[in-house]
Amino acid sequence: MNVGLLTGGGDCPGLNAVIRAVVRRVAASGGRCTGILEGWRGLVRKMTMPLTVTETDGIIGQGGTIIGSSRTNPYKNPDTDLTSARNHFESLGLDALVVIGGDDTLGVALRLHNDFALPVVGIPKTIDNDLAAADFSFGFDTAVNIVTEAADRLRTTAESHRRVMVLETMGRRCGWIACYAGVAAGADYILVPEVPVDLRRMIDSLARRRQAGKKSALVVVAEGARVEEPAHDGNLSHESLSNPRLAGIGPFIARTIEKQLHVETRTLVLGHVQRGGAPTTADRVLATRLGLAAADLVLRKRFGSILTYSRGVISEAPLTAENIAARSLDLDYYEAATAGFA
Amino acid sequence: MNVGLLTGGGDCPGLNAVIRAVVRRVAASGGRCTGILEGWRGLVRKMTMPLTVTETDGIIGQGGTIIGSSRTNPYKNPDTDLTSARNHFESLGLDALVVIGGDDTLGVALRLHNDFALPVVGIPKTIDNDLAAADFSFGFDTAVNIVTEAADRLRTTAESHRRVMVLETMGRRCGWIACYAGVAAGADYILVPEVPVDLRRMIDSLARRRQAGKKSALVVVAEGARVEEPAHDGNLSHESLSNPRLAGIGPFIARTIEKQLHVETRTLVLGHVQRGGAPTTADRVLATRLGLAAADLVLRKRFGSILTYSRGVISEAPLTAENIAARSLDLDYYEAATAGFA
Amino acid sequence: MNVGLLTGGGDCPGLNAVIRAVVRRVAASGGRCTGILEGWRGLVRKMTMPLTVTETDGIIGQGGTIIGSSRTNPYKNPDTDLTSARNHFESLGLDALVVIGGDDTLGVALRLHNDFALPVVGIPKTIDNDLAAADFSFGFDTAVNIVTEAADRLRTTAESHRRVMVLETMGRRCGWIACYAGVAAGADYILVPEVPVDLRRMIDSLARRRQAGKKSALVVVAEGARVEEPAHDGNLSHESLSNPRLAGIGPFIARTIEKQLHVETRTLVLGHVQRGGAPTTADRVLATRLGLAAADLVLRKRFGSILTYSRGVISEAPLTAENIAARSLDLDYYEAATAGFA
Amino acid sequence: MNVGLLTGGGDCPGLNAVIRAVVRRVAASGGRCTGILEGWRGLVRKMTMPLTVTETDGIIGQGGTIIGSSRTNPYKNPDTDLTSARNHFESLGLDALVVIGGDDTLGVALRLHNDFALPVVGIPKTIDNDLAAADFSFGFDTAVNIVTEAADRLRTTAESHRRVMVLETMGRRCGWIACYAGVAAGADYILVPEVPVDLRRMIDSLARRRQAGKKSALVVVAEGARVEEPAHDGNLSHESLSNPRLAGIGPFIARTIEKQLHVETRTLVLGHVQRGGAPTTADRVLATRLGLAAADLVLRKRFGSILTYSRGVISEAPLTAENIAARSLDLDYYEAATAGFA
Repeated sequence: MNVGLLTGGGDCPGLNAVIRAVVRRVAASGGRCTGILEGWRGLVRKMTMPLTVTETDGIIGQGGTIIGSSRTNPYKNPDTDLTSARNHFESLGLDALVVIGGDDTLGVALRLHNDFALPVVGIPKTIDNDLAAADFSFGFDTAVNIVTEAADRLRTTAESHRRVMVLETMGRRCGWIACYAGVAAGADYILVPEVPVDLRRMIDSLARRRQAGKKSALVVVAEGARVEEPAHDGNLSHESLSNPRLAGIGPFIARTIEKQLHVETRTLVLGHVQRGGAPTTADRVLATRLGLAAADLVLRKRFGSILTYSRGVISEAPLTAENIAARSLDLDYYEAATAGFA
Repeated sequence: MNVGLLTGGGDCPGLNAVIRAVVRRVAASGGRCTGILEGWRGLVRKMTMPLTVTETDGIIGQGGTIIGSSRTNPYKNPDTDLTSARNHFESLGLDALVVIGGDDTLGVALRLHNDFALPVVGIPKTIDNDLAAADFSFGFDTAVNIVTEAADRLRTTAESHRRVMVLETMGRRCGWIACYAGVAAGADYILVPEVPVDLRRMIDSLARRRQAGKKSALVVVAEGARVEEPAHDGNLSHESLSNPRLAGIGPFIARTIEKQLHVETRTLVLGHVQRGGAPTTADRVLATRLGLAAADLVLRKRFGSILTYSRGVISEAPLTAENIAARSLDLDYYEAATAGFA
Repeated sequence: MNVGLLTGGGDCPGLNAVIRAVVRRVAASGGRCTGILEGWRGLVRKMTMPLTVTETDGIIGQGGTIIGSSRTNPYKNPDTDLTSARNHFESLGLDALVVIGGDDTLGVALRLHNDFALPVVGIPKTIDNDLAAADFSFGFDTAVNIVTEAADRLRTTAESHRRVMVLETMGRRCGWIACYAGVAAGADYILVPEVPVDLRRMIDSLARRRQAGKKSALVVVAEGARVEEPAHDGNLSHESLSNPRLAGIGPFIARTIEKQLHVETRTLVLGHVQRGGAPTTADRVLATRLGLAAADLVLRKRFGSILTYSRGVISEAPLTAENIAARSLDLDYYEAATAGFA
Repeated sequence: MNVGLLTGGGDCPGLNAVIRAVVRRVAASGGRCTGILEGWRGLVRKMTMPLTVTETDGIIGQGGTIIGSSRTNPYKNPDTDLTSARNHFESLGLDALVVIGGDDTLGVALRLHNDFALPVVGIPKTIDNDLAAADFSFGFDTAVNIVTEAADRLRTTAESHRRVMVLETMGRRCGWIACYAGVAAGADYILVPEVPVDLRRMIDSLARRRQAGKKSALVVVAEGARVEEPAHDGNLSHESLSNPRLAGIGPFIARTIEKQLHVETRTLVLGHVQRGGAPTTADRVLATRLGLAAADLVLRKRFGSILTYSRGVISEAPLTAENIAARSLDLDYYEAATAGFA
């Protein structure tokens, strides 16, 4: 049995652990694995590499993906790319394809399965933790630990200079990273995409803490947090609200705090460092379990399926649009976290 | 409302996050908190410190427990210590007592509640992850990350010298730490207390890998792993099996491997470093959630209860012997992990 | 003897280790220490705290400065602030003042010593490693380790996506951080303030590597690196060079690479995270040695002096403008590093 | 030009950075490199691998040595091994040999150069920092950071339980690691091989601190620290001194403290974890500089030489017994460090 593996979308700590686990389980059953390079692009262009137990043995602790990734979508050029992808699947002699990716990458797998009965098995991947299929996605734990460590470092500077520090995290459409790292870092305020930013409430909360004697503060904001339309408020003037999107939400929040509270404020936009480097133990273990389970689905020819991770249990589910839909931050959790710290 | 807090047994990353969360939630409801120092000893001797929001603000990322811990059990001296503890509870004007500990510490809380209706709320704590009340205990994630990092370091030495390295982890009666860190480190063999050590199987497995070309190996063994009675086997001679307990199981396993495989083998007994230092993000968040939930139980006067954490959900349960009983490693999980790597 | 301590300018890992060492050595000689809060501002406003051996015992591993810092300069308001500072020095009963800071903070100490014979001892502090007094400044080692770790993380993403990553480090006027971290991270190109940026040479070098088969690249650039006037070059058009200062040099370099090489490029501006958090071992040891040496100078009444650190040796020198002047990156070192990797 | 590279003795973070730098500099000059596998064993048995710029590009941050190491000494079997080594040097077509190792490995290089004019260049390597040729050896900085981090973790447990923790570090014949990490961790006592252990003085010092109110303590001891002959002292009885060597000095010191001070004491023997894993920035930079300098010596045919690192400067020196002799901890430094904390 020849099993193809493909990783698509943004890279994520744990991808190599998934690859390693699939390769080992398939090899133990007498099969072999073929890495499709750079996501769907590799199937379109027939770029591959063999994946053996020996060569994948040491990759469990490496960040990124040894087979590369991209956001190529063969359905954008159905006449050329899609045809190539189908032909190469045949000519490579693949019996199955394990696809590790987010909504875009798995969306292609879904269509290929529906349109051409391509024998696919999907594994959800999102560093933002925002896929319906998984309560927790591998990579998320690594990302929040990186954010928390950065926040801990900013905290010491904030305290030394009696400053406010604003830390902008990943999370275009969901606030899991900001909320988790914010709670872990003891943030004084947390802003997420799921709840429109109430500048007045934030400023009042920070002002109360300063009056209570706390000289420094840490604000954690997800990159996708949105500011409401400017209320006609003399202090929160139009100017200060003018262009939060120009330089990003983090710098905007920092400027607003500096103007309103008259306190030195600095921003850090943490960016890509959140998705790189060695995965944490939890991410390695979760990714390994998903890889073993995916190989089992392949060996049992359960194609058109996706693995879900809910309440600590890995299960098989159909690969459907619902299972790769977006998942928001649990607002009960957010309320509990931020209410406890009002 | 005056809420006492007490931490007992071995220290564990996340204890301070629990304390901080309880203090904040109680303060937000108009109450105050009193730290009982050094576990039950502090109640026996009336050693306390006030716990305020300001002074606990910065402790979320600190290891250990700012109120100290011990293994003192007032029931050992019922005439003196037990009477003192009860009297001090009264004279301190406590309305409730939040007890954070393992089976011993919570066992005392249970008896005090049953015998004298002491208004206690329990939070399970075990770095070994071996309490019935919790699928995952705070501190465990930090511990396994420390072990995995150590294992990653040993791996580079093992490879450079074509050696076998044996890493002995904590886990007197359960193999969660060894199994998780072993999987995450890509260990070549994992030994846990729940499964009697089969030396022959281990040696054969390691030998196969060497024959397949892998020159180095990493074995992870929980300190509580037990060796079966020496089979009368010419190679696994009596001498090599003689005293695994004298110097610990790790060095014993290393000596056995060295004798059988004729390959340089080294041991590391990781010890107390596994339970110290800054908690991971996951441990801080879980500990904070438990602290908030415990404060809620106190405010709602749900005494004689314990918090459980099962399948991602924190719940209230009665403080009973069953809920603080020992929990073993999930053998299905162990089998899956080790079968995939046979 | 009552010794004042003051930390000024940007915070820096190791400040607390200096404070702890001064306090211990002074206490061992029967004296006591007074912390002047928030730099010179604390002397102007008489904000102080006692510094005892007990309370400074555990701070060696903490980032920032427990006595706070600021950029206040009493010479800006000589009639009010300067007079207050002098009066408070008297009324506090200080016998000496240990000043830990960069050129600005130490410049004030120098003037106070010259103008009013204030008994000062200076310790050079700069995270950028750019003071004449020190070959290596405490805090620098911590900063470069943080940058290298970030660069290692970016590298895995760069490789997974066949991208160029641009990492902008601290270093307004000198390239020590960029050069050290760049070498350690195996950067493909390093840009520093001391050498005007030659965009053409950079692009050609990166292009050669891509042609040789290396799909990803890492460029490290100091925030103070300057682009030369736009050569009239059809490819490096005016537009692409238009405003490197608007969004910073890092994003500008990234846009230039993307346009010229037609390869996805991302930027990370690492910012304040470089100066926070626990100091490395080397920084703790160096800071401790400086603190002990400064206390010795005080005890021997060697005022108007500064400690220098040259070729591994800590020495006493006069506190002069020369000794607190700026120090550039050693260009021989830069050439060696980058020539070796051309 | 064909340059052989060989790494011998215990592995050490930074070896791969040396290899990478030599390979790049030699390649830039039109030469090529050959890795001799597993130290001198590889020359005896003709085990090699080609070392190219591409394949060594990503190894700068990896611990260990990709070409392996051993303690094989061809002079132990002059008739067979030595002859083989010489013959293989010829048949491999090597023009030079860069030898990276400690006194043993470099001692062989010295003899081969003296006896047979083998064109060798030596680079000193010792994680213990105990070679005459180098004030600081690559690998040492990584090791002390690992020790300090472990000590920081132990400290939180010590404080939570009001315990003494004893940390045994590497350092068979010198105390650099123990002294540096001990200072950085704020250790309460430091024991090194260069100064015979004075148990009475240690116990008295720890007792004074406890009386002054400090409930916990951290003692750092190098594995090579030696206990003096038992003074006939009723308290420090013969039994407690009986066999420090049986289980190592760390456990012996812990038992002694527990008996004398009647306080719970625990030991951690850190072992091999100190020499593994990713090198720090300083070690990568130093190793890279040494590699570039060694390649320069080879290109200039300066054979029979060794690189020294003294007061921040890398220099060429003759490969002599003196330059690879042992170097002790600077006792002035030790006295300063421990006197300041008496």
